[in-house]
Amino acid sequence: MTTTDEPPYAEMINAGLESMLPPAHRMRITIAEARVGFAAAVVPVDGNTNHIGTMYAGTLFAVAEILGGAISLATFDAGQFYPTVKDVQIRFRRPARSAVRAVTALDEASIARIQAEAEAVGKAEFVLDAELTDEDGTVVANSHGVYQLRRFGT
Amino acid sequence: MTTTDEPPYAEMINAGLESMLPPAHRMRITIAEARVGFAAAVVPVDGNTNHIGTMYAGTLFAVAEILGGAISLATFDAGQFYPTVKDVQIRFRRPARSAVRAVTALDEASIARIQAEAEAVGKAEFVLDAELTDEDGTVVANSHGVYQLRRFGT
Repeated sequence: MTTTDEPPYAEMINAGLESMLPPAHRMRITIAEARVGFAAAVVPVDGNTNHIGTMYAGTLFAVAEILGGAISLATFDAGQFYPTVKDVQIRFRRPARSAVRAVTALDEASIARIQAEAEAVGKAEFVLDAELTDEDGTVVANSHGVYQLRRFGT
Repeated sequence: MTTTDEPPYAEMINAGLESMLPPAHRMRITIAEARVGFAAAVVPVDGNTNHIGTMYAGTLFAVAEILGGAISLATFDAGQFYPTVKDVQIRFRRPARSAVRAVTALDEASIARIQAEAEAVGKAEFVLDAELTDEDGTVVANSHGVYQLRRFGT
């Protein structure tokens, strides 16, 4: 599968975000890229600050965590499987004072393993590590998330 | 210090939430209790759902994480010290389909250690474990947060 053959996953998710994840939509999180094995999300700092004027921890969590849904939709059969999140660890490294971009990826071997397991037993666990950077490219946070892909109806 | 001598910390924080943490305010998170060594926060499910109709992971994170600020304000000298969050792990155990309450506590020995360290060197790290329950009392998530208390101006 080549990138140009893929549906416009980012646009599809962004169009549904207000109804699917209202709090993320209110933070103005958007999916910047979503394709097989890769997802990126962005969020502005305006309206997302904390008591010391930097980006709120809850917003940093949200822009990282949403990647699990975006990469699943673009990588696996969204007609058969949906993702749920089981566990997330997020380490806040530097205060963020600008828009933040979160990225994550899944390699081909992981994708093949997850697909085979989900097809065989109806569910499969997978891990996503995400890196969050500010507009200067400084890493402001890292997250480590454990997700589960599940067949509808299970 | 007895509970009745304490200022109304929860009311104070709730009054400032819209300006201090706009995204948390938009989720309608409120502090239910904040006193020396204890804090509780609540959030309604309405407006906070995800793509499968249960409470959004980002909202569960937020209602847990905010306890670090609430317990710090009620426990330490808010004129001298402010809290920052360094690392949070949250484990999602059951889907939440109702309002959720998050609680955390610090014992006297920990409070004394944190206070002494912050006074001596201007900062002190502390750990908060929070439990999140739905209206039936079912534990829907647990979080483990590492915070730092810092002297203003450092």
